[in-house]
Amino acid sequence: MTELEKTSRRKQCILNAVTAALQQDDYSRLTVEDIAARAGVGKSTIYRWWKHKSDLVFDAFKEHTASVFDLDFEQSLEFNLNQQLLKLSLALNHPLGRALLVVMAEHREAAGEFFRQYLLPRREQTRKLIQLAIERNEIIANYPFELMLDTLYGPIHYQIIFFNCMPDETYIHNLVSLVMQPVLVRK
Amino acid sequence: MTELEKTSRRKQCILNAVTAALQQDDYSRLTVEDIAARAGVGKSTIYRWWKHKSDLVFDAFKEHTASVFDLDFEQSLEFNLNQQLLKLSLALNHPLGRALLVVMAEHREAAGEFFRQYLLPRREQTRKLIQLAIERNEIIANYPFELMLDTLYGPIHYQIIFFNCMPDETYIHNLVSLVMQPVLVRK
Repeated sequence: MTELEKTSRRKQCILNAVTAALQQDDYSRLTVEDIAARAGVGKSTIYRWWKHKSDLVFDAFKEHTASVFDLDFEQSLEFNLNQQLLKLSLALNHPLGRALLVVMAEHREAAGEFFRQYLLPRREQTRKLIQLAIERNEIIANYPFELMLDTLYGPIHYQIIFFNCMPDETYIHNLVSLVMQPVLVRK
Repeated sequence: MTELEKTSRRKQCILNAVTAALQQDDYSRLTVEDIAARAGVGKSTIYRWWKHKSDLVFDAFKEHTASVFDLDFEQSLEFNLNQQLLKLSLALNHPLGRALLVVMAEHREAAGEFFRQYLLPRREQTRKLIQLAIERNEIIANYPFELMLDTLYGPIHYQIIFFNCMPDETYIHNLVSLVMQPVLVRK
């Protein structure tokens, strides 16, 4: 095993420990000591790569959802949005997602930066799919699609944070239908 | 001054102290000691009415936004939604709003309960205005209005929490136009 592989494996092990710890306790009670003990490393190893426990949550969430939000370009935009919003709803209700929401609220500047880095490449993929859906004549061409995406992703977070309620398949299906109604090409 | 008036005045004074303290420092550094000192009362007085500093934030936010979200039934639904979303955006960007978001994320069960109590009466008012707008022939009658409200309120919170970005008048105007487009009666 090369040095690089060893490092990567050790990092993975630490991020798994973060997830395991959060499955037992809230973010406010998460400690670097506990994570180090679970991962079988020293605290200094953790601090070499992460400055604060909030950074560990960011990376663990990123890792946990790495391929979750991949789009299927063979399928329609409507199908993909339904799938993606359901996966998002599940991810935010996972202990890691709950911890992420606390971190987002507490460290807003850092969080804004993280989210731009995390979300923008995903938005880019969604934009490509929208373009494809226009070419396939699924949807009309002229529409404020960026804003449309906010009216899809916004309500999921809103329901979870403010009503402590996880949007299910039915809610998401109704939401996507409502929002896409003005753009779908009637055939 | 009656005993009741004295109590009410003292409570008001404590909630003002919460707002003042949050204007100087984050929620995580907010202490009941500091609030007591600012309000000129003993800690035990505060604990008589509030169990935890998170409860103080809930009440201070409620107080702060008491009449902010009142609707003007003389005006159109579209006008009112524009006004209300702008006020919401400002309220959530105020130090009290920022603290509220942290509390919501950290104490989700309690927060869900608070928000249902806080939001449901407001939703009820909005429902009345929607009914009135139907009678006035501003909007069509059959539409999933509850879901429509999520697509308006959701994006405001989403932009603030995840992009650390305060929706301005233009964003809100575009959002309301987009969402209301399918329901407006063309005259």
